[in-house]
Amino acid sequence: MNDATSLLHADVERALNGLTDKKIDHVFFVACGGSLSVMYPGKFLLDSYSRKLASDCLNADEFVQRDPVILGSTSLVILCSMTGTTTVGLSVDTLSPLAQEVDFPIGFEAPYTTGVPIDARDSNYARLYQLVMGLVKAHDGIDKLAPLVASLNNLQPAIDRAHATFEPLFTQYAGQLHGESVIYTLASGASYGAAYSWINSQAVHAGEFFHGPFEVLDRDRAFVLLMGLDRTRPQQERAKVFLERFGSPEKIMVLDAAKLDLDGIDDEFKGNLVPLIFFDTLWKFAYKMANLRNHVMLEGRRYMKKISY
Amino acid sequence: MNDATSLLHADVERALNGLTDKKIDHVFFVACGGSLSVMYPGKFLLDSYSRKLASDCLNADEFVQRDPVILGSTSLVILCSMTGTTTVGLSVDTLSPLAQEVDFPIGFEAPYTTGVPIDARDSNYARLYQLVMGLVKAHDGIDKLAPLVASLNNLQPAIDRAHATFEPLFTQYAGQLHGESVIYTLASGASYGAAYSWINSQAVHAGEFFHGPFEVLDRDRAFVLLMGLDRTRPQQERAKVFLERFGSPEKIMVLDAAKLDLDGIDDEFKGNLVPLIFFDTLWKFAYKMANLRNHVMLEGRRYMKKISY
Repeated sequence: MNDATSLLHADVERALNGLTDKKIDHVFFVACGGSLSVMYPGKFLLDSYSRKLASDCLNADEFVQRDPVILGSTSLVILCSMTGTTTVGLSVDTLSPLAQEVDFPIGFEAPYTTGVPIDARDSNYARLYQLVMGLVKAHDGIDKLAPLVASLNNLQPAIDRAHATFEPLFTQYAGQLHGESVIYTLASGASYGAAYSWINSQAVHAGEFFHGPFEVLDRDRAFVLLMGLDRTRPQQERAKVFLERFGSPEKIMVLDAAKLDLDGIDDEFKGNLVPLIFFDTLWKFAYKMANLRNHVMLEGRRYMKKISY
Repeated sequence: MNDATSLLHADVERALNGLTDKKIDHVFFVACGGSLSVMYPGKFLLDSYSRKLASDCLNADEFVQRDPVILGSTSLVILCSMTGTTTVGLSVDTLSPLAQEVDFPIGFEAPYTTGVPIDARDSNYARLYQLVMGLVKAHDGIDKLAPLVASLNNLQPAIDRAHATFEPLFTQYAGQLHGESVIYTLASGASYGAAYSWINSQAVHAGEFFHGPFEVLDRDRAFVLLMGLDRTRPQQERAKVFLERFGSPEKIMVLDAAKLDLDGIDDEFKGNLVPLIFFDTLWKFAYKMANLRNHVMLEGRRYMKKISY
């Protein structure tokens, strides 16, 4: 165990150490709903660094039923329990069935769902990013753990500043958009998961926007555009130009990460960490709209964990 | 060249023969919009058969900008031109820039966009399926080309029968749903691409439905559910039970492939070919609704290929 590895959370370190003797060539990121949305930027990060590890990102039911035949002894499944394959499970509760079943459980805390303020460095995505870059170090010999961990340690203050930066925009647009029956959220690259996770909206990939969905745009349609700092930003810039050309400014909210103070986050990882700021700040916007709507969805769910299904 | 290979379309055969000397371990399915939606079932088919080939399915801009570092000399990119990597391009026009740039162009015909009736065996998805199963034969030693090609040859009559089977349902539901501002289409597995391609609707993965999107369901919400015959059908059956429990029958159209006459399609490939029936038949439904809506989208696009952007 070297210095860089010891920077990592103990659970992640244990998982990575346990994986050193195993041949791995394929990673499956498997989850549902909000947890799946976190997996998208995890795969984006792996795609950005690893020449050795192919990967898939799948809904858990889809994964089990699709049963990809490439899944085998050299596969690593992150977050879903499977027999005969190495599994890492991220779980809030280390006594959960998931944590009991997997080879390497990794704990995390969930700030944005409980409302209890904790540090983003302890979130599922921070743990996942540590795991991914640990795999990249082991399999590709690229060691970026020190700047990654330093960046994650500085993430919460950046999120707090982002809340303040976006606050006037959220107040303004919550007033303008809370009556909309549909809001489309455009994003790409590392930020697509954040758009996908946002329950009040339909996620549209910014690159796909120009191949069909843009036909719905007119002066009455509501859009949120997430502009990140990863390599796919040109798609988002192209979407912005088009939205401004054919839409109404009062119906289009642009969240531009270029306007945020990202002090303490390494330049190399800004693109990967910005979506985590979007994840958190979009919740504030959702709550603001829910208050104006007197909406059932965030005040109390109708079905999830309330009935059996 | 053996008997089974000679069953294939000449362009596919040429591509597969040209690929025999190349080491391939990763396939990138790359396209935009409707063409991307066809790639989803292509990846599903590859996942179902190949232990040797990992794959990704990406929007073309996302692919170029994400620039996955695993992309290299052992990658095969299907449909997008890249330097230093082997490329296969499916194109209607064999003189198109795409066809000129790729290593192996594969021609196809596009019946559902032009309205000119051609046989589904000549479509992009039929060529893609031949290519995928040719790769599976070469890399995994599994030869299913004969039943696949026989099934594709019998696909058009099955589609024609499906149009007749679904006609009363489409007429009824076009009347009931044409006023809806949003229709959600649920699908999974091989059928997800068909849901995604359907411009009138927002695609929701049937497995993900239970992790957020189902909260929008009430007696007023409009849904289309695609029930295919692949291994992911249990997700769709679960969604059906939930839709029927909390929604209104007149707002929920279920397209169940179990009700179709699939004579001539091999049992093994029914799950993979059913989405191709959904692709075609959903167009009929879209036209029916567009007629009732007097809608701009299918009568004439507003932006696509009309303005520069």
